[in-house]
Amino acid sequence: MDADALARAVADHLHAREGTSKALGIVIEEVREGYARIRMTVQGSMLNGHGVAQGGMIFTLADTAFAYACNSRNASTMANQASIVFLSPGRDGERLTAEAREEAVSGRSGVYRIRVTGEDGRDVAVFQGLSRSVGGAVIN
Amino acid sequence: MDADALARAVADHLHAREGTSKALGIVIEEVREGYARIRMTVQGSMLNGHGVAQGGMIFTLADTAFAYACNSRNASTMANQASIVFLSPGRDGERLTAEAREEAVSGRSGVYRIRVTGEDGRDVAVFQGLSRSVGGAVIN
Amino acid sequence: MDADALARAVADHLHAREGTSKALGIVIEEVREGYARIRMTVQGSMLNGHGVAQGGMIFTLADTAFAYACNSRNASTMANQASIVFLSPGRDGERLTAEAREEAVSGRSGVYRIRVTGEDGRDVAVFQGLSRSVGGAVIN
Amino acid sequence: MDADALARAVADHLHAREGTSKALGIVIEEVREGYARIRMTVQGSMLNGHGVAQGGMIFTLADTAFAYACNSRNASTMANQASIVFLSPGRDGERLTAEAREEAVSGRSGVYRIRVTGEDGRDVAVFQGLSRSVGGAVIN
Repeated sequence: MDADALARAVADHLHAREGTSKALGIVIEEVREGYARIRMTVQGSMLNGHGVAQGGMIFTLADTAFAYACNSRNASTMANQASIVFLSPGRDGERLTAEAREEAVSGRSGVYRIRVTGEDGRDVAVFQGLSRSVGGAVIN
Repeated sequence: MDADALARAVADHLHAREGTSKALGIVIEEVREGYARIRMTVQGSMLNGHGVAQGGMIFTLADTAFAYACNSRNASTMANQASIVFLSPGRDGERLTAEAREEAVSGRSGVYRIRVTGEDGRDVAVFQGLSRSVGGAVIN
Repeated sequence: MDADALARAVADHLHAREGTSKALGIVIEEVREGYARIRMTVQGSMLNGHGVAQGGMIFTLADTAFAYACNSRNASTMANQASIVFLSPGRDGERLTAEAREEAVSGRSGVYRIRVTGEDGRDVAVFQGLSRSVGGAVIN
Repeated sequence: MDADALARAVADHLHAREGTSKALGIVIEEVREGYARIRMTVQGSMLNGHGVAQGGMIFTLADTAFAYACNSRNASTMANQASIVFLSPGRDGERLTAEAREEAVSGRSGVYRIRVTGEDGRDVAVFQGLSRSVGGAVIN
C-alpha cells in the first residue's frame, strides 16, 4: 500500500469508529499523507443561541480533519493543543469544508493548519493544531 | 434585576435557543456576572476513533461556558479566537464540568479562561477565549 | 530549603544566565512554587514602528515569568506553546509587570497563565503557556 | 507604485522606526503584498538560562514578519492575538529566518502564519497571528 492509500485507510478506520462523525454527518472527501479534506452540513442541532453554527461544531470539523492528517502515516497521534480564529459565521443548512495541511514535523510533535470554508468559498475559520505521537499504530 | 440574575437570564435565553445544548445535554449549574459553570455527560455520539471524547466536544462545552460568561452583562458578544490545551481524555459516560472566568476586559475585547474537569476533579482541558462585543443586547 | 525558597533560587539561577533579562532589564519581584511576578521598563530599543512596545517584548516579559513559574519545582521544563492576546499598548518609559500562575499540571505537561499589566493597573496582555518537563534538574 | 513595491516601502518605513529591529539586527530579505521574509542572528543578549534563544526573541522575529505582511497594503494594522509552537531551539550564533504568509482576510481581520527556520532549514517555530486594521495609512 502506498503512503496516500495508507493515509486514506487510516482515516476510514477512524471515521468508522467516531461517534462524532456519525452524529454530525462528516464525509471524507480526500486524504493523503499529511493532508485531509472533509465536509459537513450545518444542521439545527449545531446552532448556537444566535442561530449560526456553534463555534465548537466548526472546531470539531477542523479537529477531525486534523486527526486524519496527523495520523496519516499510521503512527497513533493525539491533539495536544489547538488555536482557532473565527472569521465568519457558518449558516444553517450550509455545507462547510475543512482542509488540513501539515505545516511542520519535529520529533514526535507536528503542527497542522486547517482552513474551514463556506459554500461560497469564504473563510469561516482558521485552526492551528499541535499533535504529539504517542507510540503504536492506528491500524494493523 | 441585579447583575447576577441578569447573567443567569441571558444564559437561560441562549441555552433555550442552542441546538448544541439540546443535542449534547448541556446543563447550566451556575451563572453570575463574568462567570459560568456548566456540565455535560460524554455519550457515544461524542467519541472519537480512540473511544474517548472527541476534542471538539470538549471544546464545545468550554465554548458554551465562555459564551455565557462573555454575554453575562447582556451585551451581545461573539467568540473571536480560542486556544485549548488537552491534558487528559474525557471518558465514555463521564460527566465533564466547564467553569468560565473573566480574565480581562478592555474596550470591546474580553479574555476568558475556561477549565474543563472530569468527575474525579482532574484537569481535562484548559481554554483561553478572546471575545468581541458586537453591539446590541441579547435579551430585551 | 522549602518549596518557595527553592522556586526563588531556581529563578535567580535562570535570571543570572539569561542574556534577555540583562538586555531588557528584567527584575524579579517575587517567585513562589508555581508563581512568579517580574517587571521591566519599556525602553526605546523595545518600541515598534508605531512608537509603542513591540508585541514580542511584551511576550518576552510574559514568557520569562512563565519560565520561572514552570521551573519552580527545579524540574527542567521548556515552553512548548503559547498564546497571547494584546489588549492595550505598552508605552515608552512605562513599567510593565508580568504575573504568572499555574493553571493545571498533568503528567509532564503544565498550563500557566500570565497577565501583563501597566503602571496604572490596566491589562496590557494575557498569555497562556503550555510547558513540558524534559527531565533533569535546573540547579543541583 | 505597484502593490509589491508599496508593501516593501511600508516595511522599510516601519523597520526604520523600530527600536527592536535595530537592537536585534533584523534584516528584511523580501516583502510583497501579504508576504514578508526577514532574518536575524542569535546573539548572547537573546539567550535564555539554558543557553539557547529565548522564546520571546523567536516570537519577536516572527511578530515583526507578521507586522510587515499585515501592513503590506498600507492600511494601519495591529496584532490582536498570536499563538506560537516551539519545535526546536535556536542556537547561539545561528541565523534564523521568519517567513510570513497571509492565510485569510475577512473584513478588518486577517490571519497570518509565520514559520521560523534555522540555518539548516529545520523548523524552529510556527506562529499564527490574528491582526485587526485600525484605520489610517502607515505611510503617506
